[in-house]
Amino acid sequence: MDSAIDLSDSSKALSLPHIRYQLIRLEDTVLFHMIERAQFPLNPTIYKPGAIQMEGASETTTSDGKLLSFCDWVIREQEKLQSQIRRYQSPDEHPFFPDALQPAVLPELNYPAVLWPNDVNVNNELKERYINTILPACCVQTGRPERPEAQENYGSAATADLACLQSLSRRIHFGKFVAESKFLAAPEKFVPLIKSADLAGIDAAITDAKVEAKVLERLGKKAEMYGGDPNMDAEAPRKIDVDAVVNMYRDHVIPLTKIVEVDYLMERLKGTKWE
Amino acid sequence: MDSAIDLSDSSKALSLPHIRYQLIRLEDTVLFHMIERAQFPLNPTIYKPGAIQMEGASETTTSDGKLLSFCDWVIREQEKLQSQIRRYQSPDEHPFFPDALQPAVLPELNYPAVLWPNDVNVNNELKERYINTILPACCVQTGRPERPEAQENYGSAATADLACLQSLSRRIHFGKFVAESKFLAAPEKFVPLIKSADLAGIDAAITDAKVEAKVLERLGKKAEMYGGDPNMDAEAPRKIDVDAVVNMYRDHVIPLTKIVEVDYLMERLKGTKWE
Repeated sequence: MDSAIDLSDSSKALSLPHIRYQLIRLEDTVLFHMIERAQFPLNPTIYKPGAIQMEGASETTTSDGKLLSFCDWVIREQEKLQSQIRRYQSPDEHPFFPDALQPAVLPELNYPAVLWPNDVNVNNELKERYINTILPACCVQTGRPERPEAQENYGSAATADLACLQSLSRRIHFGKFVAESKFLAAPEKFVPLIKSADLAGIDAAITDAKVEAKVLERLGKKAEMYGGDPNMDAEAPRKIDVDAVVNMYRDHVIPLTKIVEVDYLMERLKGTKWE
Repeated sequence: MDSAIDLSDSSKALSLPHIRYQLIRLEDTVLFHMIERAQFPLNPTIYKPGAIQMEGASETTTSDGKLLSFCDWVIREQEKLQSQIRRYQSPDEHPFFPDALQPAVLPELNYPAVLWPNDVNVNNELKERYINTILPACCVQTGRPERPEAQENYGSAATADLACLQSLSRRIHFGKFVAESKFLAAPEKFVPLIKSADLAGIDAAITDAKVEAKVLERLGKKAEMYGGDPNMDAEAPRKIDVDAVVNMYRDHVIPLTKIVEVDYLMERLKGTKWE
């Protein structure tokens, strides 16, 4: 059960077997949360800024005045609270609303500087893909009609969305550890690519098509296993559509992870002897 | 995937097959959350009032001055926020800190009065059992040493605790729907038992030993399935101890559900022709 990676130990944090173990374990977390979200209808209204009146709510816009959807408001209020318990001090956590973060109520922890200083954060892109593509595919099941909106589930859906988005974000931004580990193992390969801003070359250098195929195969098996029920009929509807989960990884999680890796590496030479 | 029970429709909310379906589905939710919590060490310090200084935190005591543990503080702050999005308007949700609830920012929903007015809430008892018995059993694995405290996981552990406690609480308080359904099906059986405050008699009338054995058997299978990994070695450590999960249901979830059922029925005659 020791699957929470120890980021306070830099030798572990950058060991590829440790990172791989954590990424595999995070697949389970992502799946558990997506299965929970799929209990509720899509409820598209909760993602439309201004569509739901929130009477008496504090801060219904971002600090630069952008109107929040109901779901955004829930995420942002949660990040206010979770920043107080140090969530965003951990190098594998990235906020969706960095403008909302509050001072921590716990003393600061001393994480070793494992990653190179960077401000890579693809959460906006992730959230857009989640709302527009990932969630619609996971919330309807092939051959079954879409369920109507249920106001009773607005809060539950947004709360489940937060858990899904946070686990996806964590999985995707783990790409920074992968990239750092690969960079340290072969700087002579990466430095020239980075210096010439050869994004396609970096992407090719970090891509392992065989590993990717294995991830998708494993994920399909897990979606079968966790989305089923040991006591259900073979024909009974499953808790989540297997293809929707596999496609989510193939079309979004893996590509966004690579964007994180490439973007991170593009900042990797700043302040080094190679700059 | 339609497993969120529709409590806005009283015929569904009190249909025993519907309730049973929801209870079975909630087993998965409970298991998913317990598996996530078991990633982290037990971290007993977070449950001790006053053991962790929370600088600048708002309301580190309940409104009647009781000092909160770190975990309690996280739960209470979460309930403040979740009450704003109507969590506790739903008849199957019960707060751990009723003193903290805030006005909702969404308009009130009209749930039909499915349950008889009552104030049964066993969350204090649940939380005590969770901290002292359930969690220690689920966070250590037979034959493996206990993991040391990890300050880096204080926030993660408390956040996971909230999800565990909320799903357990929802499962246990569903006993109210079970009790109401059984009462309406046979008031002639229950009224005399309630009138004579025959708690043992009520308990016997609501107990079905065969169903309970089936629940435990099913739960063990689920813990095997969700706590494993389709690609793991047969000898690899599992994500959660199967016996710990089965014992949690046998010794705590089922007995607390029965307490809810009995307590609810003891309030069931108030204001009726049978009083």
